[in-house]
Amino acid sequence: MKKILLTAIIIPSILFGQDRYQSGLGDSAFIKMISDNILVSRASYNNLYALTKTVGGRLAGSPQMVKAEAWGYKTIQEAGADKISLQECMVPHWIRGGKDEAFVTYKSAGGKKENMQLNILALGNSAGSGVKGVEAPVVRVKDFDELEKRKDELKGKIVFYSVPFEETFVQTFQAYGKNVVYRAIGASRAAKYGAVAVLVRSMTHATDNNPHTGALHYLDSIPQIPAAAVGLRDVEKLNAILDNNISVSAHLFTYGKMLPDTIGHNVIGELTGTEFPDEIITVGGHLDSWDVNEGAHDDGAGVVQTIEVLRAFKALGYQPKHTIRFVLFANEENGTRGGKKYADEAKEKNEKHIFALESDAGGFTPRGFGFDVKPESWVKLESWKKLFEPYGGNTFSTGGDGADIGFLREAFKTPLVGLQPDTQRYFDVHHAVTDVFEAVNLRELKLGAVNMAALLYLVDKYGL
Amino acid sequence: MKKILLTAIIIPSILFGQDRYQSGLGDSAFIKMISDNILVSRASYNNLYALTKTVGGRLAGSPQMVKAEAWGYKTIQEAGADKISLQECMVPHWIRGGKDEAFVTYKSAGGKKENMQLNILALGNSAGSGVKGVEAPVVRVKDFDELEKRKDELKGKIVFYSVPFEETFVQTFQAYGKNVVYRAIGASRAAKYGAVAVLVRSMTHATDNNPHTGALHYLDSIPQIPAAAVGLRDVEKLNAILDNNISVSAHLFTYGKMLPDTIGHNVIGELTGTEFPDEIITVGGHLDSWDVNEGAHDDGAGVVQTIEVLRAFKALGYQPKHTIRFVLFANEENGTRGGKKYADEAKEKNEKHIFALESDAGGFTPRGFGFDVKPESWVKLESWKKLFEPYGGNTFSTGGDGADIGFLREAFKTPLVGLQPDTQRYFDVHHAVTDVFEAVNLRELKLGAVNMAALLYLVDKYGL
Repeated sequence: MKKILLTAIIIPSILFGQDRYQSGLGDSAFIKMISDNILVSRASYNNLYALTKTVGGRLAGSPQMVKAEAWGYKTIQEAGADKISLQECMVPHWIRGGKDEAFVTYKSAGGKKENMQLNILALGNSAGSGVKGVEAPVVRVKDFDELEKRKDELKGKIVFYSVPFEETFVQTFQAYGKNVVYRAIGASRAAKYGAVAVLVRSMTHATDNNPHTGALHYLDSIPQIPAAAVGLRDVEKLNAILDNNISVSAHLFTYGKMLPDTIGHNVIGELTGTEFPDEIITVGGHLDSWDVNEGAHDDGAGVVQTIEVLRAFKALGYQPKHTIRFVLFANEENGTRGGKKYADEAKEKNEKHIFALESDAGGFTPRGFGFDVKPESWVKLESWKKLFEPYGGNTFSTGGDGADIGFLREAFKTPLVGLQPDTQRYFDVHHAVTDVFEAVNLRELKLGAVNMAALLYLVDKYGL
Repeated sequence: MKKILLTAIIIPSILFGQDRYQSGLGDSAFIKMISDNILVSRASYNNLYALTKTVGGRLAGSPQMVKAEAWGYKTIQEAGADKISLQECMVPHWIRGGKDEAFVTYKSAGGKKENMQLNILALGNSAGSGVKGVEAPVVRVKDFDELEKRKDELKGKIVFYSVPFEETFVQTFQAYGKNVVYRAIGASRAAKYGAVAVLVRSMTHATDNNPHTGALHYLDSIPQIPAAAVGLRDVEKLNAILDNNISVSAHLFTYGKMLPDTIGHNVIGELTGTEFPDEIITVGGHLDSWDVNEGAHDDGAGVVQTIEVLRAFKALGYQPKHTIRFVLFANEENGTRGGKKYADEAKEKNEKHIFALESDAGGFTPRGFGFDVKPESWVKLESWKKLFEPYGGNTFSTGGDGADIGFLREAFKTPLVGLQPDTQRYFDVHHAVTDVFEAVNLRELKLGAVNMAALLYLVDKYGL
């Protein structure tokens, strides 16, 4: 058996087409062929390197976004898509505008004046302070409850949300899920009571001092105040200062600016289905990233894995029964306009979307998938688990699909699934300068693609 | 229930002793307490930092070995052992002796003379070339079969074992298991036919160029020739040179020397059993590491996790029924004398060793355990799996225990188990300069300790 497989891999793929997978060659044997093909290929290494090192950070609206789209188009084409298109959508265009800085001044109990600089990053979509900055006394709160209780103290102040990232949650996304609201709407909640800026503890367990940016959302008809994330070591220092000193103020300099919406694109490759060309399976990741890093895990990994599945299917001569769309979504980070556009246009065209898979939780070693499917699908899923065991992706849970494909659920009730890699390292790098090529282990990245390809193959063959 | 648990964690541990775990508080609740305690503690961070950054590389016989033993003694004491001892054993004392270097010279087809330097590390236990080095033509072989076929060509040559690390094996230890024999006895196999030195492709999938050292074992009555591992990028370059050039030779400079055996120690802490003090459960890792790195994953992780289990048990007031020994083994890397001594003395004293657990596969995110137990134990193990699910260590397989505790199997048929972390990143750093503190994710390290503590608790409570 082993000998046959090895031979199969080096024979040009055209010699054994789809029939092979429908008659005789078992599912586990085909998945092993996928795994062997992906694990020995250098394509994902080269693709991730190109996206992270030659394109780099690629926030919606930036020149790098345009470069990334061109790269994505070319790379999907080379991977062997039957069709390829750019789907235009308007995207927000936020710019950082300068180097974010913050300085804390305080008087010790003895009356001595002291200073320290904080390592900060302005939150995405936030308004800048301008060159004069915003200077005000700091009010620290541990959560929104405390904010509400102390609302009368906030006028003219800088609110510091010192909300610890829960360390006891084994799944780190639970800690993120609990705290991200302070990053998302903390500014508006504080501005409502007259605060002039906010500082937010970075959403991370990292032991370093890098701040972690991420999208903020200003609530309607509340003043849009500057907002920045602070690195964890500086959070500890600032907390110590607040614990021990009578008068603490901060001076914040940020330069964020929201420019008019601009044109972006979803990049869409397709393998056209042989039996059900009108029934669409979507697999994707998002092409945009934050501006301060290379977007290697978030979401270069998902992009490269998506392309890798296409490349491996073509290399193995696998032509799906259903149409599979390989989608690099625009603007997940600060608008999800790409995901919305994709679903809106599908709805307009009355397309049939039977399944969608997203990889947007980092390129770490795969653990399994999070499914949002109808309860009766679980019988089939349980029967497939064993096939994923050799590749580490056999933990199947509910929830955790993906921000971009989520719009398909709203539009079509499409069954959705997200790849779930191990979560321990993700928030070390998430939205920080450390999310770079070197933080990705190429074998972990590839194994993610192996598990994704296996699932797509099974769904294409057996439905879900 | 959650409230009770939270209260329990902050009450001094003395207030609720062993009874609590035997009456009422369920296993999953206690394991959650272990997890919470370990995940919020900074002890493992501080301990790994001290061991890697203030002690550093700590090969048997080195001054750092002595420093590591003193650190281990103090740290186990502080973690709260009932007893602590140093178990003396003679260890080999190999020194690298200098900076390993190799230079390749070759004539191109046009007759032009070219040079390149190889990034190498002498293998542990290997004899040095001396200051004049060893210079000879290079004969490349792809495996021992080819070596045997070409045995008449080897006299006076440098043999280059260009054996690829299997990329298609999902579990990287399988690739290591297949190839390590070339590092271990490749020198003697080549020297038997008159070769004067060997170069070995590093045992790694890494995309960098760092060579990976590791123990060599000279076979009796065969000349002891120099041997070194080559970084992978240089392996590719050397292969290209060998493919395209008519005459290739290498000049190797290594300075390794085996000095007389010296005194080392196993560091042994103990929690004395309340019901069966004479029945011993062992948990450990090895204190030694290679000289070229900080031994963070190999095996600083196992050492720190071992101490962390002790610290957490004490912090939670858990006093085991059986005696648990927390052992930092000496000299795993180039002799396993510590493991042997531990079992030999146990045999002499007629001790009863009922279970042993080792962590020596890196401080990466836990996947499960490899068991070497009697078949009937699997019923119990299967019933425990569910308890490990929330902590990621629920993949139970056979084999893969640990080099140090292996001697207990020979001596007592003791049931053995090894922690099995994810294997994708391990051989990136294994025995290379990159095995440093910064390569360890502290949450992954801690989760390993959580799973180890959970297993020890269950074995202590229910037997195996």
